Parts: sequence; structure tokens; C-alpha cells
Amino acid sequence: MSDARSNYVRPLDIRQGRIDMAHGAGGRAMAQLIEELFAKYLGNAYLAQGDDGALLPAPGGGRLVMATDAHVVSPLFFPGGDIGCLSVHGTINDVAVMGARPLYLSAAFIIEEGFKIADLALIVQSMAEAAKTAGVPVVTGDTKVVERGKGDGVFITTTGVGVVTAGRELSGRSAKPGDTILVSGTLGDHGMAIMAVRESLGFESPIVSDTAALHGLIAAMQDSGAEIHVLRDPTRGGLATTLNEIARQSGVGMLLQEKDIPVKPAVSAACEFLGLDPLYVANEGKLVAICAEKDAIMLLAAMRTHPLGREAAIIGRVHQDDHHFVQMTTSFGGKRIVDWLSGEQLPRIC
Amino acid sequence: MSDARSNYVRPLDIRQGRIDMAHGAGGRAMAQLIEELFAKYLGNAYLAQGDDGALLPAPGGGRLVMATDAHVVSPLFFPGGDIGCLSVHGTINDVAVMGARPLYLSAAFIIEEGFKIADLALIVQSMAEAAKTAGVPVVTGDTKVVERGKGDGVFITTTGVGVVTAGRELSGRSAKPGDTILVSGTLGDHGMAIMAVRESLGFESPIVSDTAALHGLIAAMQDSGAEIHVLRDPTRGGLATTLNEIARQSGVGMLLQEKDIPVKPAVSAACEFLGLDPLYVANEGKLVAICAEKDAIMLLAAMRTHPLGREAAIIGRVHQDDHHFVQMTTSFGGKRIVDWLSGEQLPRIC
Repeated sequence: MSDARSNYVRPLDIRQGRIDMAHGAGGRAMAQLIEELFAKYLGNAYLAQGDDGALLPAPGGGRLVMATDAHVVSPLFFPGGDIGCLSVHGTINDVAVMGARPLYLSAAFIIEEGFKIADLALIVQSMAEAAKTAGVPVVTGDTKVVERGKGDGVFITTTGVGVVTAGRELSGRSAKPGDTILVSGTLGDHGMAIMAVRESLGFESPIVSDTAALHGLIAAMQDSGAEIHVLRDPTRGGLATTLNEIARQSGVGMLLQEKDIPVKPAVSAACEFLGLDPLYVANEGKLVAICAEKDAIMLLAAMRTHPLGREAAIIGRVHQDDHHFVQMTTSFGGKRIVDWLSGEQLPRIC
Repeated sequence: MSDARSNYVRPLDIRQGRIDMAHGAGGRAMAQLIEELFAKYLGNAYLAQGDDGALLPAPGGGRLVMATDAHVVSPLFFPGGDIGCLSVHGTINDVAVMGARPLYLSAAFIIEEGFKIADLALIVQSMAEAAKTAGVPVVTGDTKVVERGKGDGVFITTTGVGVVTAGRELSGRSAKPGDTILVSGTLGDHGMAIMAVRESLGFESPIVSDTAALHGLIAAMQDSGAEIHVLRDPTRGGLATTLNEIARQSGVGMLLQEKDIPVKPAVSAACEFLGLDPLYVANEGKLVAICAEKDAIMLLAAMRTHPLGREAAIIGRVHQDDHHFVQMTTSFGGKRIVDWLSGEQLPRIC
């Protein structure tokens, strides 16, 4: 390095170092953290511009989609992932379920003083890996540091921008009576992976988060030609809350078949143990699709050919209902209302 | 309200209520907070879509600019503003100094359990007012809640997207030897407004933050026809850090004239009292411009005709220097190096 800075600063101590307030103050320490950690791992031509924002190629024609997510998951590392990859997947999914092709991500870090730089490095590497796999670069970012006891390790807010071509836009307002409701796989994996760690539940094989970027699956679904009306990723609040949101937005009712809703036996057992309902537990790599009845089988087939949709299933049907109720025929043949999540079920799950 | 939800939920208690974990859990309480507070104040057609992201008109031709800022300012309310308007201004400015017209903002809230809903309402109203005045809507958002003692009131991450027409792009890499350096007004106002509150400094007239959106001033500067090479808003780390960043990015040196750098007497006095240097103190409504020498007077005139540039001044000159030093001729006629900010000077200033 011929830079004058290198005369003054020792390399960032990634193995033993800890974040201090100077790393957020805008000076030399922050510049070093950005250069030797964020830019090093996330490195791409946009980040390398080194300005306060990123200058990006024109998206070319379509409408923009923008989505943002603050990630506060606790613990930061869990079976199947960590806050780093989760923050990439979560926001890519929010863009993709609008029917858009995700193009760019930004990432803003709020780090607690004293946080281990080694852990931050693992998290940033995980983000970088997820962004690379997804083909969606982190183009700009920000770093702030708060005093010990004013944060909790690290919070990461990611924002995604995508582009959607005419005719491919999707919204929660488009479900119609007669439509078929599908899910892309088993429900509750992410939430129960987190809860199992928090509650120190020891299973023979641990429950693993399903965290994944769904834009590839969604592209395959759209390419199938099926008439898709709604896509949504059932994160916080789980499937039940997501379906209630859609029912309300679209002004319809829904009827689910409990026996058709896929849940892993281990997730089911853990839910029972903790008194939770898998329908309210967060997912981070699953989607709900609502499509025209005539195309449901075709869409199901398209989903099942994709690695992230192998366990896709048809779980119910949309109907007219002025109360916008989501109901379910239980495995015992009864019928119950699947209400909104009312209280705090699983805090800090994403 | 004919909605089924209204049978179960009382209106949000904006006057006496406090945020609890349920407001971040994705269920009914969160939907209510979004509807009765965020959507109510920030309300626009994009937010009203009610999806996980916003579907936005095509930006039309130019390249995109994207910038993000996590705001952790403490205290949340300060003379001249609060974290709400600050989070709108800060990100608009980061987009605008790239030469882009800011189009859209997203906002992600991380709220500490127990935070007063009345304070949140004030902050969201302030954001709404700032966004409306600037003509840049908040189109999508997210809300998370963390346990008491794991956050600090509220943190707000805003991300901005803008569009830049060909030939108007600006970057910190474009300063050239011979260029003139200007600032748009007095330095250190924001940082010292915060510090005065924190240190309970009693002045006859309090120091007021300069927080403001600069895209109008920047448009006026660009319309002047002056050959502008670099714009940057000197926030964290102040003017000194910003100029060092630009010097490094552009591979040049700079020489400032201390006597020409505008600082309000009250700010100067407070800095002296606290042992701070106004060159390192954050600004939130000021910019540095570097332009071709031939156009400097024209640009200065254009700046001074805008309300946010009335106290604009020419403060120095770019020259060739392989060390990329920023130097200053002091008021006493000596010369000193204006180095990077080294340690933690002013934490949580924005």
C-alpha cells in the first residue's frame, strides 16, 4: 500500500479485535473497517466507488420495486444460517414476491460497542456468500456503533431494489374467489430452528433454518406460464398471518386443509413441546402462491422441479367472504378460524 | 370500519401507550401500529399498496443512485430537529450529492420495548413533514422491536433511490489540481447542537442543527452550468474527514484558508469550551463543492441565491500531492496538516 494512511494504522485485528466507538465515528478507524472488512468480503465495482451512495446502471424499462427489512434476529448464529445470509435472503424475497427481478442491495449495520470483529467478519462473509449465490450485489452501506448496552451485537437493515416487467407485477390485492393456495414447502423451519437454540432443546438432528433466496424459484414459477395472482413469503407471524393479510387486502376468505399443510415431524414435535402452532411460526425460505384454479397443477409441477420447491403442496382455496376469514378444515374433520397472530409469539425471529 | 379486525382491537393509544414486543411480531398489533401511525402520517399511494415492498413508476432512462444510512442519533430530539427529519434529510443528501434526483425513500425502524408511542408519533410526523417538503415519499418500511436494554429508543435506517441523467453524475474521484473548494455555509452546527444538549451547555440562544435536504440547492448549482467535479455532505467526521476522503479518492492534495471557513461564533465558542475542532464536527445541511476554478465565482453566486447557501464561501484549492494531504493556512499565517479524524470524537451524532 502506497497510501499515506498505511503509515499510521496497523491492520484491523480480525481475530482478536473488538468494535469500539471509533469504528462508527466517520474517521480513520471507520474507513479501515470498511476497507479491510466490508469492502474486502462484499467487494464489487459499485462498493469500490467509495462514495456515499452507489451509481448503478439503468434498470432498463420496467417499474421499480423497493423493499426494506431491519434484521434483529437473536441469536445471531443459528442452525442453517446467521443474521448475515438472512438479511440478504429476507430482502431479496420481499422484492421477488412482488414479481420483480432483484438487482441491488444496500446494507446498514448498527453494531454494539465491544462486538467481536471475528463474529462481524463471519457475518459479512455469510452476506457476501449469499449475495454472490443470489447474483444480487450489496452496492452501498453504512456503519454505526452504539454504546455497550444500547444495542445487541449487530442489527442489519438491508434494502433491495428490483425491476419488474409489465404484466409480471404481483400484489396481495389480487386473490380471487376460486383461486388455489399453494406453499413451496414445509412450514415453521426457521422459527423453530431459532427457538430450539434459545430454549436449548436437544434433538437428535437439529432443526435447520430454511433461509434461502426465492427469486430463482419465483422465476421458474413465472416461466411456467401459470396465472399467478399473489406471492408472499410467510415470515414473521407465519402462514396464518400472511394469509390473513392477503385475505384482508384482497377482500376474500380462505379455506385451508390441515392435512395438506407440510410440516416436518421434528418441527411439529418442537412446536407441541413449546405450545406453539406451526402456522404462526416464521419461515425464511418459503412462499405462499395463489393462482388461478385452472393452472394449479401446472404451477405445482413447476415448483416441485425447483430445489426450493420440492415439497410444494396445494393447501387450500380462496372463496368469497365479507368477513375475510381464513378457516381450516382440521385433521379431525372440524373447521376452525385461523386468526391473526394476536400477541408476541416469537420475538426477534428475523 | 367494517373490517373484522375492528371487533377485536381498540385504537392505538398514541398519548399514553408504549411499544411492546407484540408491535414487532408480525401480527395484529404490528398491523395496527403500521396502519394507525406509520401509514397515517407517511401516507401515500405507494405505502397504501400494503405489500412487503413498493411497486414504483419506472425512473425513466437515467442511471440509478442508491444510498443508505442507519440513524442512531442521541438524544432523539434536539434543537432544530429530531431523528425523524434527520433520517429523511441524511439519505436524500447522500443521493443528491451523487448528482441524482432523489425519488423514493424506505424506512426501517428498530424500536426498544417500552418506547413511548407519543414520541414515536412525533418522530414519524417529523419524517412525514420532511419527506413532504422535500417531495420524496417514504414508499415502504419495516418495524422491529427489541427488548428493553437491547436498543436505545429508536434507530431508523433510511435508504434512498434516485435517478441521474447522463453527464450529471458526480463522484469523490473527480477532484483535479487547480479546482476550487467551496462550502455551502457555516460548519459544525449539527454536531454542536447535539453536544450542547448532551453536555447541558446553556447558551443564551441555543445552537440549532442545520439538518436540511440539499437536493434543491444542488439542482440550482447544477443548473448554473458550472463545471462541478465533486459534491459531498460533510456529516460524521466533519469537513476535515470529508476532504481527506476526497483527496484520497481523487489522488490529490488540498490547501484550505482557515480565515475563509465560516463558523458561527456560538459554535466556535462551544467547540473551544469542549476542546473540539469545528472542522471535525458533523453537519447535516451543508455540502462541500469542488469545481473548475474558472466557474468558482459563478457557482458561489448560484449557491448564495439559494436559502440553504446564503453563507456559502470559497475555502481552498486542490493541488497535486502524492501524499494526498489536506493542509490549512491558519489564521496566524502558519500551515498545518488537517488529518483524518483518528479516534472517537462525537459518537452517535447522526
